[in-house]
Amino acid sequence: MMKKVGIIMGSDSDLPIVRKATDTLQSLGVPFEVHIYSAHRTPAQAADFARSAKANGFGVLIAAAGMAAHLAGALAAQTTLPVIGIPCKSSNLDGIDALLSTVQMPGGVPVATVAINGAVNAALLSAQILALSEPELAEKLEQKKAADAEKVLAKDKALAEEFQS
Amino acid sequence: MMKKVGIIMGSDSDLPIVRKATDTLQSLGVPFEVHIYSAHRTPAQAADFARSAKANGFGVLIAAAGMAAHLAGALAAQTTLPVIGIPCKSSNLDGIDALLSTVQMPGGVPVATVAINGAVNAALLSAQILALSEPELAEKLEQKKAADAEKVLAKDKALAEEFQS
Amino acid sequence: MMKKVGIIMGSDSDLPIVRKATDTLQSLGVPFEVHIYSAHRTPAQAADFARSAKANGFGVLIAAAGMAAHLAGALAAQTTLPVIGIPCKSSNLDGIDALLSTVQMPGGVPVATVAINGAVNAALLSAQILALSEPELAEKLEQKKAADAEKVLAKDKALAEEFQS
Amino acid sequence: MMKKVGIIMGSDSDLPIVRKATDTLQSLGVPFEVHIYSAHRTPAQAADFARSAKANGFGVLIAAAGMAAHLAGALAAQTTLPVIGIPCKSSNLDGIDALLSTVQMPGGVPVATVAINGAVNAALLSAQILALSEPELAEKLEQKKAADAEKVLAKDKALAEEFQS
Amino acid sequence: MMKKVGIIMGSDSDLPIVRKATDTLQSLGVPFEVHIYSAHRTPAQAADFARSAKANGFGVLIAAAGMAAHLAGALAAQTTLPVIGIPCKSSNLDGIDALLSTVQMPGGVPVATVAINGAVNAALLSAQILALSEPELAEKLEQKKAADAEKVLAKDKALAEEFQS
Amino acid sequence: MMKKVGIIMGSDSDLPIVRKATDTLQSLGVPFEVHIYSAHRTPAQAADFARSAKANGFGVLIAAAGMAAHLAGALAAQTTLPVIGIPCKSSNLDGIDALLSTVQMPGGVPVATVAINGAVNAALLSAQILALSEPELAEKLEQKKAADAEKVLAKDKALAEEFQS
Amino acid sequence: MMKKVGIIMGSDSDLPIVRKATDTLQSLGVPFEVHIYSAHRTPAQAADFARSAKANGFGVLIAAAGMAAHLAGALAAQTTLPVIGIPCKSSNLDGIDALLSTVQMPGGVPVATVAINGAVNAALLSAQILALSEPELAEKLEQKKAADAEKVLAKDKALAEEFQS
Amino acid sequence: MMKKVGIIMGSDSDLPIVRKATDTLQSLGVPFEVHIYSAHRTPAQAADFARSAKANGFGVLIAAAGMAAHLAGALAAQTTLPVIGIPCKSSNLDGIDALLSTVQMPGGVPVATVAINGAVNAALLSAQILALSEPELAEKLEQKKAADAEKVLAKDKALAEEFQS
Repeated sequence: MMKKVGIIMGSDSDLPIVRKATDTLQSLGVPFEVHIYSAHRTPAQAADFARSAKANGFGVLIAAAGMAAHLAGALAAQTTLPVIGIPCKSSNLDGIDALLSTVQMPGGVPVATVAINGAVNAALLSAQILALSEPELAEKLEQKKAADAEKVLAKDKALAEEFQS
Repeated sequence: MMKKVGIIMGSDSDLPIVRKATDTLQSLGVPFEVHIYSAHRTPAQAADFARSAKANGFGVLIAAAGMAAHLAGALAAQTTLPVIGIPCKSSNLDGIDALLSTVQMPGGVPVATVAINGAVNAALLSAQILALSEPELAEKLEQKKAADAEKVLAKDKALAEEFQS
Repeated sequence: MMKKVGIIMGSDSDLPIVRKATDTLQSLGVPFEVHIYSAHRTPAQAADFARSAKANGFGVLIAAAGMAAHLAGALAAQTTLPVIGIPCKSSNLDGIDALLSTVQMPGGVPVATVAINGAVNAALLSAQILALSEPELAEKLEQKKAADAEKVLAKDKALAEEFQS
Repeated sequence: MMKKVGIIMGSDSDLPIVRKATDTLQSLGVPFEVHIYSAHRTPAQAADFARSAKANGFGVLIAAAGMAAHLAGALAAQTTLPVIGIPCKSSNLDGIDALLSTVQMPGGVPVATVAINGAVNAALLSAQILALSEPELAEKLEQKKAADAEKVLAKDKALAEEFQS
Repeated sequence: MMKKVGIIMGSDSDLPIVRKATDTLQSLGVPFEVHIYSAHRTPAQAADFARSAKANGFGVLIAAAGMAAHLAGALAAQTTLPVIGIPCKSSNLDGIDALLSTVQMPGGVPVATVAINGAVNAALLSAQILALSEPELAEKLEQKKAADAEKVLAKDKALAEEFQS
Repeated sequence: MMKKVGIIMGSDSDLPIVRKATDTLQSLGVPFEVHIYSAHRTPAQAADFARSAKANGFGVLIAAAGMAAHLAGALAAQTTLPVIGIPCKSSNLDGIDALLSTVQMPGGVPVATVAINGAVNAALLSAQILALSEPELAEKLEQKKAADAEKVLAKDKALAEEFQS
Repeated sequence: MMKKVGIIMGSDSDLPIVRKATDTLQSLGVPFEVHIYSAHRTPAQAADFARSAKANGFGVLIAAAGMAAHLAGALAAQTTLPVIGIPCKSSNLDGIDALLSTVQMPGGVPVATVAINGAVNAALLSAQILALSEPELAEKLEQKKAADAEKVLAKDKALAEEFQS
Repeated sequence: MMKKVGIIMGSDSDLPIVRKATDTLQSLGVPFEVHIYSAHRTPAQAADFARSAKANGFGVLIAAAGMAAHLAGALAAQTTLPVIGIPCKSSNLDGIDALLSTVQMPGGVPVATVAINGAVNAALLSAQILALSEPELAEKLEQKKAADAEKVLAKDKALAEEFQS
């Protein structure tokens, strides 16, 4: 059975961003669970979740948080599962505070950081990781990649017509 | 008996900065304890220390950490004692990563942030806090403030002579 | 009697931010006074207020200012009471100018800086400081912390139901 | 047989950073290959390597590059394997150019970005990914995590003695 | 016959910016072609286009892309034609990510970078380049420069009247 | 008699920068006084100096300070004389903190800001201001400007010879 | 007769900002002229204006420009009159590009830079400069400073009543 | 006869950077002239040079300058020849001031900006532009591009041997 992706957000204000990740995982048939655990308001629950994630069937964790975004690092501190961090734009600083708080992790505790608000890519990255031992999922990812390319080429074709006429 | 200041650093590479804090506290006669607990490598010990700090006689905590500096926030998540954060310059980004990771805390969990590498001010701030109920310490802080002013005025006097001759 | 928190803003345009601090203090039963004194337009009044704050029953000062935000530093120059700085976003630079102007204080004159527009945390920090000698206030802070955690857990529970159905 | 980690650097000037990754992988017994392929000087070779990486037994790719660091993105464009990006500090801008060029990928083509010059974490992350289907490697990662914590605690103990005496 | 300008955008979301370039080229009578080729979603098509651009009658390429904007560099990797890069503001970071990703190219592979969203200038620059061997186009550019100056002077005259009355 | 320039630095560590200003003023025959008054350590003396500067024969004030550089603003708060600010690089942030703290003054209290460490230009600017009513000084500034141009042209000539041979 | 202030803007899009300067000068009775001369589109006119400004009765120049804001520097290159620069926010970068382009002038050619969009302060600074030899204007500036302070104190009084009731 | 490249630097301190450009042009057999003309100290000479550049046989101009780097823009204001800007790191701000001052040009006056200190690429870009009507130079550029690729592949081969043994 495929391992699950655990998606944790630090606040329910991050939910609109997180939904782009859950939509992506659903479209790929990857099982997931979503939780709200704050690194600062419910640190014990966040730690417990990460510490027991492997035993509970998770293969990858995704953390979405803004400002001084400690959530991904707090999860990574408790598990050797790969942890993906989505820095969320939720302050006045355009998310650069969340980006640096997420990506500049010290040696020993990696966080796989994606772009600010990059929830689709966080989901795809988690799928790419699980796909290493899930040939069917790997196939879906290849198909999605090909479809993405097709969409660009179709738009290019439409554009060529527009500029010719 | 005066409450203690608990100084936690995330890595022993922050020790040279932390010593400026301990020297300042010693000169003011403020009791303190120093520990190395990493928010990412020893999260449980960092959390335990903060959770039991009040019961163990601490009145203020100081956290010194660099890069994605989560330590101050991780301590603040576990206690209602005031927590002071020293963002340390320990990456290629001049400490701006540590500053944003320390100061941009979400509502509910404050960290009193001082300047990058500002360990002397972290110590003074902890003393100012304790001095609210320690008249003798308050008096020492007033004297130090007056002495700091005197030093500036003495330098100004020496300068005036230099530029006159 | 509990010491008061003195909240000074540099301009009445900062009032919407400051209200989040006064609301927080009111909910905790912490006495406070609010003033508009500009470090640049009424420097004498700002200095007088800070210099006499201790004698007038204040225990902590909070300064809210934007742009080249000198107010917190100007107050801290005149008192050994703890001074908390709220960098306000009131220029075109998203508050990063106010943040650096507030936090990068030279040695000897600390300002306890919170996040840009972080008025709630400034109020909580002032309460945490006063609570060191006010057991009842300390208890309220513990209760608020627990309640904040409960809110997160309730949201997590609601979310789990939403994603299951 | 364990899948290999493919490490690509954009220039041999990045080799000192990359060695920290290869040392880490060696200590964990993870097989790897190292190459110099530039996204700009040898784009065809870089693309070919990525396109055939899965068929050639690779499970994860790591790309190390500086300045307008396109290498990780260029590899990710050609494969559905997870690609880890190490932004290297090799310009006058402290690596912030490489960080943004690596992490701010558009939707559809994720790059798992680690800290500037964060080669150790890139290696650990690749090992965490492979460990999902390699229980022995997972065990080694758990042991390393425990050993890292032990080192911190030993330093804390030594420090306590120093500050007591 | 005049060489063509090839304008490539990474995504159709960049089209409103690109139109300012095509309008400018049209007003100058410079022939051009517009395409959507993504450096990350259709890397082969982007590379093919650039590699055969010279043979296909192009004299200059313009690439418009946002975020980790690799497109200009990816084209420049495949051709010795001059390549102009327009960093597009399409993320939360105001285009500074696209600017650094476009301009900070390593030695050997230049990209002529214009301002963020600077599509008019990209078009003018391409015309200036082609005008070196197209005297008629050179003359049009001189006329446009003179007309631009006249417009400023006319506005200055109108302003003088307004402030006098 | 010509009005004096008052140069105030916040710390004697800024003296090497300030000397470039005093050397420039001396070479132009502009009278000046130099003082060390800190906006934070000796705020009363800084304010007194500025408040009485006009009466004491000063025409322009120059303030040199680093980090959260409040000195220029603190002087400007007390006088209607023109105040020039030199943001000094004295922290880990390359002087950008001092620049923003000096230049981003609120409406009503201007500070004429020069480049980071731009002491020569601060002195020249003060001389340009005084020269409005000092024809002889105005003449010296014209001569210096011409001499500066001559130096560039001489270097250009030397260069031309070097590249020809 | 009082010398005039010459206000030059690089584009009529800067007019709303410039009006705040002209309003301020009008309220102080300072004579001024306003022009649109672009450093890049009408460089000769901008240079001519600056070169002849002194002979034409100007005492101070103010330049308002955005993006790569060269206007203030271009004027300063042609005159020894004091030149004040207003960096205008007119690009995607919040005016930080204009600020650095205006303030970071090389030695020999000072520009007195005010805050981003700081037109009121530019006008006040020009008045402060002219007031050195215009006692009546100096008196008006003192009155305005006092009135500004009174406004703050009145607002403080109103606030105190609001928070008491 | 091939058109010349005109290289202008704002100060002789930029010469070490400029030499990388002249070396590159020499190796390609592209004729060039080097001058020191400052946009701020010798604005007339800089303008004259640019205005007459086309008539004097130049095809492309390269401007190297630091800080508030106006030189490239000042040249571009006077000619419709393509102007390439090299932002030089010559202040405390790592060249980011020069980059923004060079690249953020307003519509109508393009500057083709390369990386901070990117003199080699400026030279290559000028050669690419001239090569549009110089088939022999175009051939040299193709050969150089192939040789650059060969060097990378040779290093990759050497590396492979090192890591195998």
